[in-house]
Amino acid sequence: MLPPQKKSSGAEIEELIALLAKLPGLGPRSARRAALHLIKKREQLLLPLARALGVAADKIAICKECGNIDTQQPCAICADAGRDASTICVVEEVGDLWALERAAIVRSRYHVLGGTLSPLDGRGPDDLFLVKLMERARQPGVNEIILALNATVEGQSTAHYIAAELEGLPLKVTRLARGVPIGGELDYLDEGTLAAAIKLRQPI
Amino acid sequence: MLPPQKKSSGAEIEELIALLAKLPGLGPRSARRAALHLIKKREQLLLPLARALGVAADKIAICKECGNIDTQQPCAICADAGRDASTICVVEEVGDLWALERAAIVRSRYHVLGGTLSPLDGRGPDDLFLVKLMERARQPGVNEIILALNATVEGQSTAHYIAAELEGLPLKVTRLARGVPIGGELDYLDEGTLAAAIKLRQPI
Repeated sequence: MLPPQKKSSGAEIEELIALLAKLPGLGPRSARRAALHLIKKREQLLLPLARALGVAADKIAICKECGNIDTQQPCAICADAGRDASTICVVEEVGDLWALERAAIVRSRYHVLGGTLSPLDGRGPDDLFLVKLMERARQPGVNEIILALNATVEGQSTAHYIAAELEGLPLKVTRLARGVPIGGELDYLDEGTLAAAIKLRQPI
Repeated sequence: MLPPQKKSSGAEIEELIALLAKLPGLGPRSARRAALHLIKKREQLLLPLARALGVAADKIAICKECGNIDTQQPCAICADAGRDASTICVVEEVGDLWALERAAIVRSRYHVLGGTLSPLDGRGPDDLFLVKLMERARQPGVNEIILALNATVEGQSTAHYIAAELEGLPLKVTRLARGVPIGGELDYLDEGTLAAAIKLRQPI
């Protein structure tokens, strides 16, 4: 009888593929391609990536002030004296902060909640970075909180919860404008967006 | 005058994103998502992946016998006494070897060329792992070479080149059955097609 056929690639390679497959955007097949690509580009890619991950693991931490991730504590944004400290822009995730920074429109500080309230998934106020937000909102000099949360049901119910919590503080609480996205074509937009754009129409 | 706006994420995070974006299947946007995912899942994903890449860099090498990649030298397939040593299955890339191993149809040894001949791209015979293949093909006991190259123009012209080189040796030279769709690449085919193509291999 023949012995059972051995695996073609070592356990170490399988392990690497399995880990790569856990990255968002990569499935089992693309993870195999990525692993092969890494092994082939040992000097240019594999070693630098291993190093970069090691550095990330060692150095990157969550900012105790705002929930952003950075290699310094507090993060570069909280530490930047050139930022407008009177406004706090509240976002769900670090990815949202990055998106706003790419737009280079927010000159204030941020606060990263780390998600949204979701009773169905068992995520309550204690699971978000909310206590710190309340503390920051009470600091003298803060006069506006922008709730830049996603325009989803969960994002908006979280925004309403936070707005209610902030009530009574001498603050302006705002949210992102609703409407047609720049470059958007009416024919491709959903009814909700169109309804909001009509309802909130602005003088030209 | 305001100082220039600082980057929101540290240079280390940007570096990690840039490296991830070089992986096949990930673009700049998905690389950002992947980096964020890694940083969030420090213990479950970031550290294990950094370790796995380190292990891969340390241990994985190209088999001097067949061009496969493995953590042992010679690779597990070359070292496997249960494998049929009379046949050598020639493939372009390690990914093709993996695809054939997943189909579990090849019980022989392999030979990984590391690409195809491509005069337009300046890849000649010396750029492939061909000298070793000729040496292996001359070893006593070897009686068949399966040219399991992609059914692309380059794969097939490479197959013809190798078949010409092998002429005169007491060998059967075969190629995959025409069950592989024209233009198809092994790594993308289903196991059934691969199995049929191996089973119905034809003299060249």
